[in-house]
Amino acid sequence: MTETKARIAILGASGYTGAELVRLLARHPRVSIVALTADRKAGQSMAEVFPQFAPLTLPPLVTIDEVDWTGVDLAFCALPHGTTQQVIKRTLDANPQLKIVDLSADFRLRDPGAYEEWYGHAHQALELQQEAVYGIVELYREDVRKARLVANPGCYTTTAILPVVPLIEAGAIDPSVIVVDAKSGVTGAGRSAKESLLYTEVTDGMHAYGVGSHRHTAELDQEYSKAAGRSVVPSFTPHLIPMSRGIYATIYVNTAPGVDAAGVHRVLADFYASEAFVHVLPLGQVPQSRFVKGSNMCFIGVAKDRVPGRVIVISTTDNLVKGASGQAVQNMNVMLSYPETLGLEQIALFP
Amino acid sequence: MTETKARIAILGASGYTGAELVRLLARHPRVSIVALTADRKAGQSMAEVFPQFAPLTLPPLVTIDEVDWTGVDLAFCALPHGTTQQVIKRTLDANPQLKIVDLSADFRLRDPGAYEEWYGHAHQALELQQEAVYGIVELYREDVRKARLVANPGCYTTTAILPVVPLIEAGAIDPSVIVVDAKSGVTGAGRSAKESLLYTEVTDGMHAYGVGSHRHTAELDQEYSKAAGRSVVPSFTPHLIPMSRGIYATIYVNTAPGVDAAGVHRVLADFYASEAFVHVLPLGQVPQSRFVKGSNMCFIGVAKDRVPGRVIVISTTDNLVKGASGQAVQNMNVMLSYPETLGLEQIALFP
Amino acid sequence: MTETKARIAILGASGYTGAELVRLLARHPRVSIVALTADRKAGQSMAEVFPQFAPLTLPPLVTIDEVDWTGVDLAFCALPHGTTQQVIKRTLDANPQLKIVDLSADFRLRDPGAYEEWYGHAHQALELQQEAVYGIVELYREDVRKARLVANPGCYTTTAILPVVPLIEAGAIDPSVIVVDAKSGVTGAGRSAKESLLYTEVTDGMHAYGVGSHRHTAELDQEYSKAAGRSVVPSFTPHLIPMSRGIYATIYVNTAPGVDAAGVHRVLADFYASEAFVHVLPLGQVPQSRFVKGSNMCFIGVAKDRVPGRVIVISTTDNLVKGASGQAVQNMNVMLSYPETLGLEQIALFP
Amino acid sequence: MTETKARIAILGASGYTGAELVRLLARHPRVSIVALTADRKAGQSMAEVFPQFAPLTLPPLVTIDEVDWTGVDLAFCALPHGTTQQVIKRTLDANPQLKIVDLSADFRLRDPGAYEEWYGHAHQALELQQEAVYGIVELYREDVRKARLVANPGCYTTTAILPVVPLIEAGAIDPSVIVVDAKSGVTGAGRSAKESLLYTEVTDGMHAYGVGSHRHTAELDQEYSKAAGRSVVPSFTPHLIPMSRGIYATIYVNTAPGVDAAGVHRVLADFYASEAFVHVLPLGQVPQSRFVKGSNMCFIGVAKDRVPGRVIVISTTDNLVKGASGQAVQNMNVMLSYPETLGLEQIALFP
Repeated sequence: MTETKARIAILGASGYTGAELVRLLARHPRVSIVALTADRKAGQSMAEVFPQFAPLTLPPLVTIDEVDWTGVDLAFCALPHGTTQQVIKRTLDANPQLKIVDLSADFRLRDPGAYEEWYGHAHQALELQQEAVYGIVELYREDVRKARLVANPGCYTTTAILPVVPLIEAGAIDPSVIVVDAKSGVTGAGRSAKESLLYTEVTDGMHAYGVGSHRHTAELDQEYSKAAGRSVVPSFTPHLIPMSRGIYATIYVNTAPGVDAAGVHRVLADFYASEAFVHVLPLGQVPQSRFVKGSNMCFIGVAKDRVPGRVIVISTTDNLVKGASGQAVQNMNVMLSYPETLGLEQIALFP
Repeated sequence: MTETKARIAILGASGYTGAELVRLLARHPRVSIVALTADRKAGQSMAEVFPQFAPLTLPPLVTIDEVDWTGVDLAFCALPHGTTQQVIKRTLDANPQLKIVDLSADFRLRDPGAYEEWYGHAHQALELQQEAVYGIVELYREDVRKARLVANPGCYTTTAILPVVPLIEAGAIDPSVIVVDAKSGVTGAGRSAKESLLYTEVTDGMHAYGVGSHRHTAELDQEYSKAAGRSVVPSFTPHLIPMSRGIYATIYVNTAPGVDAAGVHRVLADFYASEAFVHVLPLGQVPQSRFVKGSNMCFIGVAKDRVPGRVIVISTTDNLVKGASGQAVQNMNVMLSYPETLGLEQIALFP
Repeated sequence: MTETKARIAILGASGYTGAELVRLLARHPRVSIVALTADRKAGQSMAEVFPQFAPLTLPPLVTIDEVDWTGVDLAFCALPHGTTQQVIKRTLDANPQLKIVDLSADFRLRDPGAYEEWYGHAHQALELQQEAVYGIVELYREDVRKARLVANPGCYTTTAILPVVPLIEAGAIDPSVIVVDAKSGVTGAGRSAKESLLYTEVTDGMHAYGVGSHRHTAELDQEYSKAAGRSVVPSFTPHLIPMSRGIYATIYVNTAPGVDAAGVHRVLADFYASEAFVHVLPLGQVPQSRFVKGSNMCFIGVAKDRVPGRVIVISTTDNLVKGASGQAVQNMNVMLSYPETLGLEQIALFP
Repeated sequence: MTETKARIAILGASGYTGAELVRLLARHPRVSIVALTADRKAGQSMAEVFPQFAPLTLPPLVTIDEVDWTGVDLAFCALPHGTTQQVIKRTLDANPQLKIVDLSADFRLRDPGAYEEWYGHAHQALELQQEAVYGIVELYREDVRKARLVANPGCYTTTAILPVVPLIEAGAIDPSVIVVDAKSGVTGAGRSAKESLLYTEVTDGMHAYGVGSHRHTAELDQEYSKAAGRSVVPSFTPHLIPMSRGIYATIYVNTAPGVDAAGVHRVLADFYASEAFVHVLPLGQVPQSRFVKGSNMCFIGVAKDRVPGRVIVISTTDNLVKGASGQAVQNMNVMLSYPETLGLEQIALFP
């Protein structure tokens, strides 16, 4: 039955992660895109919103309410935080057989209290929140395989979790002192028209933002703490960099007694030896964000610091691919029992 | 026998067009890369030169002399102008069954006199020069199908030929007044370390260069004149733009009597109606270079000017794909009787 | 009395041209900024809107109605097109001794019919429209000296008028065939939050816009026609380039009989020999936009084309300085009988 | 006697810091540039090397040996590391009355052993090394005033020393745990033609480099240790960012018992209250690199971290101005008893 194609809907197709889903899925051999929604641009064609799709045949943009769910196998949900939980609740209630990969933050936090603290209101779909699986395939592959609802992680968190969680779990580092200095390309902020995101405000310069308060921190707390078996509170500082795509995380860790940079490197190299989408560079080499741009890869480098007992771990992804839509497709592949790399083979576009 | 894979060599794999060939061919289902050369970087792995390929298994970089040509079906030649003709002559003499797609300028001009005028020395492989087919598939498909040696056109010229030659052939424009104001991304200049190509010299500004003297002009002369049946001398001004990829040609043409912008548009829309890699936008819409970035597409727009009798035709390609390596793979597909779009389905990476 | 300082108001200080006026005037030795307006940001400090001014002492942002005009000598008006004419009419009615440099398009066109055609409504201050002087100092110095109201030209037009008007006036070119292929940095579009101006929509690519319909064309028509003594209709195509500042105009002209590129160059070199802000490069050299960035300079280059009888003239300015606020200060200097270069001596910021 | 002008030579005028010195000094009211050297470009005009200076009258580029030192008051030395020490020794031996501001690293380290360790060879001018004053005016103003030879600090170090040394001296932070995550624009790497600095290798992406081994670390060690009165070893990781200018340092510090973010902020605000070139933002505000671009300012922000006892201090400068040539002019002003801000009043060029 390798010829069957899953029928796919994309909710929120007019944003950047929506477009990236279309880019990947339009060439995926086991998928058929049957519905695209964009509430404010309903009635337009995808080519009007993103002209690069003009040569393709795609469904028109419709409102969510206009979607005919009959026969839809899986939906990607690329809607804003907050409203997503109700949309998904309603959709799953009406179509319980549907599988969903949600790219919003709504189902990423398992703890209702943490959700309420970081998002400022009680969660509206508590049962689904408990059901949802955190969709980092490399860490939760079996759970994803059985999931009906996958919460696709954030771009910062994917990039900062992949290189750190195995180190915590292996006891190679001291989880009480972790500094994540993270840098993001501008697509991470989406396509909404804000003065602060104008070309003229972002190019040829940089700045930190959300210091000590970025919501992705909650996901780091959750996953680091889970790995450590106790509460872990990392420092996390995001910066906006004049590049379209890319997350670049420079992570300062203190090693456990007897562990040096080579030991840290070995843990990561072993952990990811058979993973298709995580590549650990040789010890001492640092990655560049451009070497993953457009691909679903995470590149990780390990370097020793001058400061005894400190190691620097550097991790980079494309925030729209492994940090969002590519990882979502990877989750879909696992959920549908497809080969995990299907449709995700593209190599980085460099230069 | 759809399962057979052609055995491919890439000469000059350490430049940007070489890397782009690897990017495309490593995922091409009917191709096996068996040799990669880079004279100055021989002995290194491709991953050392372009780390984005680190997760792949690829042949090591060797010198051209080290290539074992046994069983090689087709070679891409991405070497510097001037030396290429001798390399190809020598290689074809020794391996007459080999097919070659040459990405240099060495075999693009049919007229030995024009070659000598523009390149300052007599051609060293005159017979091959006569044999070579100019590799714009959309215009020379049947010749390419039978060719042993294809001269892959330049990026500027591909972008300026596709929208203009059908207009000349149809008699829709006056070939004696054509202004091609062309803008290029920086990859068009290759990977050689020159002060003028430093980030700091190129970013956040722009300039014209080679005004009235750029060598790609010779190709325009050749193809425009061939279409017109008489000598055509266009104005051609290249500019360097702070973007990695992309050629953007704004072309001012005077229409033939009785032809207006709609007529110009109709000629192009009809001519390219069934082509996979040329997309003519609706009349009045202009393309953006970013909507073809990373793809093998050429997008063409037609707009009427305020000046009576003048029409503005705008054409854009990715100089490394449709302007170089993608077009080379398209030529290869035709030469090997593969489906023309095989391995070239990638959609533009935007944003 | 060289110590007296003129008292200056800036209406519309929260946009880019407003900020550029503050940058220049805060260091101008003969000027004191006494009022800054920004209707939507009234109540904020300039440092909140543009933090680079945090170390300075500046008046707070107020609404236009809150300005105390007592003792104000000159106002710069950097307000949106359309509403400006009424603001200026009202302000001059109440303060007839005031001098104004208006950076909007409202008073640039002398012909009420042309204004109505390009802006879609009748002009609301016809008498002032007739009174206003078109503020290119190099062409209208004496008129500016006596003016009460100066209409500061647009950035595209300044850049395309300076190199062409002397050629038309000298009879060196045929005014009936002029192609202005113009490229603009993104600040030319101002600071309003539009999706099309987001970093992610503008970076690493380019596109034409307003083909055949950009309103600056009306100014070109006016000034070219005035120089020619008959109606001149140039082609004008603007493009958006991923750079912050800079206009770069590549202008294709046909020479008059007996005139070649050297003749064209001589006309311009002679015309601007004693001008501080226009620099004509040696024949054959082309300027780069980055060599004028941040300065009030216009650099002009002349190159011969391959096409007999055609010459390529290239002109570049910083759209926020010589294309807007710098030229406005230059106008002010002339209006106030200050040395013309006062406060405008800054050299381009390159790299 | 305010009208006298010091006679100035610039050694190494063809690099970016040399050009920046010319940009600043050509408009400095108390300075006359009498000699410009550039060994490899001797015989050319400055306008050939940096066309933005074409409108100015400047001395021609000569070799160092061709300089006539008669009557030269002060020289800026913007030569490569390593050779500088011999050039300066020779020049001062022949012209002992000369004052020198050296922009290389040759005289920054007071400890000959540290110099040898970081630069791999013994210092060739030990007496001058001892004589040289470390040229951060805000910290060493009195020493600079009396100095004959000033070692102008590096860009990274200026940016990381200004916000940290006062905190160490005040006992507000624990010097044993300092993480400096630093990001640099590309001009920091100079104008030499290297593949790794090509536009195409640097744009639209980022990477760390010199992890744990960058030579500027030695200056941090020296100044932090001096402030602490004991050996301090910070973590320091530089990154290359696609922007022309700017250093952006995100610094993680642990506070001393009883000190919180407000306390850290107060120390810095007080320390720099009367300094013209260091601006401390209100508590909780973070700077952007673009708000100092082209100016001699250092902007500092302080934010509290989620992690108890940790504070994040952010500091940014323009690496070519306060990080190099502007600071050099500031040193010159102090050495010549000029007002410290003379010629350095330019406000940042934003946007």
